[in-house]
Amino acid sequence: MRFLSYLPAWDWLKDYDKKLFADDSMAALIVTIMLIPQSLAYALLAGLPAQVGLYASIFPLLGYALFGSSRVLAVGPVAVVSLLTASSIGAIAEAGSIAYIEAALALALLSGIFMLLLGLLRAGFVANFLSHSVISGFITASGILIATSQLKHLLGISAHGHSLPELLSSLFAGLDQFSLWTLLIGVAATAFLFWVRSSLKALLLRRGFSSALADIVSKAGPVAAIVVSILLVRVLSLDEQGVSIVGEIPQGIPPVTVPPFNWELWKALLPAAIVISIIGFVESVSVAQTLAAKRRQSIDPNRELLGLGAANIASAMGGGYPVTGGFARSVVNFDAGARTPMAGVLTAAGILLATLLLTPLFFYLPKAVLAATIIVAVVSLIDIDAIKHTWRYSKTDFAAMFATIMVVLLLGVEAGVIVGVSVSILVLLWQTSRPHIAVVGQVGDTEHFRNYLRHDVKMLETAIMMRIDERLYFANSRNLEQRLLKMASEHPKLKDVVLVCTAVNDIDSSAVETLERINELLETMGVTFHLAEVKGPVMDKLQRSHLLHALTGQVHLSQYAVFKQLQQAEV
Amino acid sequence: MRFLSYLPAWDWLKDYDKKLFADDSMAALIVTIMLIPQSLAYALLAGLPAQVGLYASIFPLLGYALFGSSRVLAVGPVAVVSLLTASSIGAIAEAGSIAYIEAALALALLSGIFMLLLGLLRAGFVANFLSHSVISGFITASGILIATSQLKHLLGISAHGHSLPELLSSLFAGLDQFSLWTLLIGVAATAFLFWVRSSLKALLLRRGFSSALADIVSKAGPVAAIVVSILLVRVLSLDEQGVSIVGEIPQGIPPVTVPPFNWELWKALLPAAIVISIIGFVESVSVAQTLAAKRRQSIDPNRELLGLGAANIASAMGGGYPVTGGFARSVVNFDAGARTPMAGVLTAAGILLATLLLTPLFFYLPKAVLAATIIVAVVSLIDIDAIKHTWRYSKTDFAAMFATIMVVLLLGVEAGVIVGVSVSILVLLWQTSRPHIAVVGQVGDTEHFRNYLRHDVKMLETAIMMRIDERLYFANSRNLEQRLLKMASEHPKLKDVVLVCTAVNDIDSSAVETLERINELLETMGVTFHLAEVKGPVMDKLQRSHLLHALTGQVHLSQYAVFKQLQQAEV
Repeated sequence: MRFLSYLPAWDWLKDYDKKLFADDSMAALIVTIMLIPQSLAYALLAGLPAQVGLYASIFPLLGYALFGSSRVLAVGPVAVVSLLTASSIGAIAEAGSIAYIEAALALALLSGIFMLLLGLLRAGFVANFLSHSVISGFITASGILIATSQLKHLLGISAHGHSLPELLSSLFAGLDQFSLWTLLIGVAATAFLFWVRSSLKALLLRRGFSSALADIVSKAGPVAAIVVSILLVRVLSLDEQGVSIVGEIPQGIPPVTVPPFNWELWKALLPAAIVISIIGFVESVSVAQTLAAKRRQSIDPNRELLGLGAANIASAMGGGYPVTGGFARSVVNFDAGARTPMAGVLTAAGILLATLLLTPLFFYLPKAVLAATIIVAVVSLIDIDAIKHTWRYSKTDFAAMFATIMVVLLLGVEAGVIVGVSVSILVLLWQTSRPHIAVVGQVGDTEHFRNYLRHDVKMLETAIMMRIDERLYFANSRNLEQRLLKMASEHPKLKDVVLVCTAVNDIDSSAVETLERINELLETMGVTFHLAEVKGPVMDKLQRSHLLHALTGQVHLSQYAVFKQLQQAEV
Repeated sequence: MRFLSYLPAWDWLKDYDKKLFADDSMAALIVTIMLIPQSLAYALLAGLPAQVGLYASIFPLLGYALFGSSRVLAVGPVAVVSLLTASSIGAIAEAGSIAYIEAALALALLSGIFMLLLGLLRAGFVANFLSHSVISGFITASGILIATSQLKHLLGISAHGHSLPELLSSLFAGLDQFSLWTLLIGVAATAFLFWVRSSLKALLLRRGFSSALADIVSKAGPVAAIVVSILLVRVLSLDEQGVSIVGEIPQGIPPVTVPPFNWELWKALLPAAIVISIIGFVESVSVAQTLAAKRRQSIDPNRELLGLGAANIASAMGGGYPVTGGFARSVVNFDAGARTPMAGVLTAAGILLATLLLTPLFFYLPKAVLAATIIVAVVSLIDIDAIKHTWRYSKTDFAAMFATIMVVLLLGVEAGVIVGVSVSILVLLWQTSRPHIAVVGQVGDTEHFRNYLRHDVKMLETAIMMRIDERLYFANSRNLEQRLLKMASEHPKLKDVVLVCTAVNDIDSSAVETLERINELLETMGVTFHLAEVKGPVMDKLQRSHLLHALTGQVHLSQYAVFKQLQQAEV
């Protein structure tokens, strides 16, 4: 008991009772039914044997339950991480080989270690460097790539590649070998699943089903597709007609695995592990936060990293591959009434039971049906509206999004993330390097000051008051200097310049030096330099610089005070 | 005449007269005397034959005079660019080989093209991404590296390397072969030049010299050292005693050269060309700006890029190597009364005359004396005070500076620039990702609102007013969300949250989406979300988003208005 109390999970374990157990069990049952086909399908997407998907849905759930902070997050294989896995391992080992499976274990271990480190260093903030535009562009482009990569299973041909041009040319090259039966099953399954997703629930409700029942029936759609297709293949012996099937899945408990400790391999996988960790974390934390807020709970992002790190390390030790919190399944878990991470533990038990007992049933499952479940799932990731909104709201954010989408599609997922992050940082630097500067004047006889270009304001003859709307730092200090000096050289009568700092949230050491230079250069021009309305924390910093000693003018508390003073000096 | 009027130089050419010519001639004479030994020395530092330094002081000056915007900038070989040249070409070709000289031409051409492109694209702002801390750290570390690299000439041994550990171990390895005469000459020259620099002018002034004369005499110090050392070597035949001399310098006009058009070479030199362009531009523009301001003139940074680009392309065509505006020589040019870029043209003519007539005199010039002039020049680059100030002012800026210094010393100059820029961008992202957030309350019965932690203010029972002091963008929007939701989950009685935006200078699309999410999540908690004091340009942007339609509360014009309204609602 004492040992247990040190676990993060003790938070909820200590008050655990039968009522909670009943709720969690119900949620676990529904999530298990949903997770079985998904696990098989995402393993296929990652280029791994089907059972690896099941294994990745057992131990990782226990790891997260022990260390995570969300009550309802459902962890396991997800589409985007599976794509990242396929793309990074595909460059190193051949799909289907032992080396490929081992590399997947190593990738899970590395991602887990990286997440743990980030969590222990409380460095979850690195995820913030991914802007929404970049993430949204990344997910949309990944959705397109994933859907395209699954077309080969629908057509029954072989194709490969990790970018759109590679995939498409490979698909076209193999098009003449397509299998008619596979295509029929694949298209039928895809159409059925789209119909289930879009219309079944409404139909059931109209037929008088209760909302809960309609929900469960429509969630079971994929299961129906699987059962029917297995029976079809078995009865018509379609596997002998060229329909590719899942085949034998080893029955039994997951193996205990040790990822290969190979330095070259680790070095090659490290960039992918970092991308997987950050993308996985961002996705996971955002759904965890949404669900927590709905019950007025909160989550701790750094503990989320520990939970996800533990999940990935557990995955590496239990025959799996990289995992993270899934959006759809977490919402299902929440809606089905999960109350604590015990729901995850029970789901793991459910998947374990399936692995022990049900795997022989999947022998005749056509891969085309798994591909159909993937396609239907990822099409919802493609968010054209987000692209439109971003375009309308900000052209610069759109630039980062567009760069991400194009690079993911044309060069691959990792390059896309790197380019997207670089573009959004460059955009930030570029925008803040050209701050909005307003020359302000007095509004009527009030103490308010406004931009003289937008308002009818009172100005001074020999003084200029400039308000700069940005933190002063290295990227914009030179710009400020140039604009100030240009203005000074254009106004020969100028005697005073006031820099109004109401919106200056920080001044870094480059900017302090620049202000010292401006002060000095204005002095050689015979112009006095003042500051006004410097914020408390910024003033604290300035106290440690030379600027305040050297300043030819003063630091004024308010714009109004300095305006009055300069006005009197003019008279 | 019509053609001339299209040239940027027409600005000053059109009003050129005898008076200006007289002033410019005087300045040109002094700069020429100063530039001859410097040109020879910096060529030595770059690992190039002595005449290349002279050539780089002829055509580039004409190129700059035609296109540059500063009236007094003196262009030519400088220490830091020579070091960058040596370090980048040294990795490609052997010092002393034809390939090495050709690579220097190619490097000048590439730098010139890159500067021209930046100038034409009006992209001079990229230089802003180098913070003062990084530049200052870079220059200090370069000074240490350069001084260390010259010790071999003082000792008369051979050594190589582009980082401090390489240089030092190479120096120690060769220490037993040192030449006593070289050491004597080198140490004497160094000591003499330090004395000239630090004490001669004051001494002359005390002896009753006029200030102008004292200035010229002390500027001629290096010339005296050169003359005396040449005579010593000649008379005592020290070149036969192991003193390394400059030797034959080809006499005559500079050759017309065509840099090699070799794609592999260009690719290898491109990173160095970019670093040289940006470092050269930053150095040059800052001295040009300082000097322009002293005469209440201004410069155009993008035209500076054109001028420097033209200078480097001219250098590549005229047997030189990369050049930029030099700090010391520009100040000398300014102090000596230069009025227009014609001073640069006349300086070029002076150097050309020296190349035609004086080169035989330099045959016996000991390399140790050139090394001494370099050491004395670069020691002034080492700025320990700047390190101390930065440490005192801001630990984060110091981190960027320290990283730059260490990486330049340990790994080399290019890696240093890259690491320095990366660290300063990371620091910016890190700082802005954790913005200052103040919960504010009413000060007395005024319309002022202040942080409740710092001031005694009136708060509301069921409402929180939060002022965020940073632009809202991708790196901090998640942080804001977490803090807001945490606060909401900790105050069960909360009914209203007001985000006060006085210091929010921009809201990007990530932040808008986050605000929409916050609004939605607060709504599920039964909390109304308000904005207050949104700035004009920010409000313009918000009009294009969904936020304003979805907002559960209102956008209030002032903190006071919303406070009053919520206060009345409480009663």
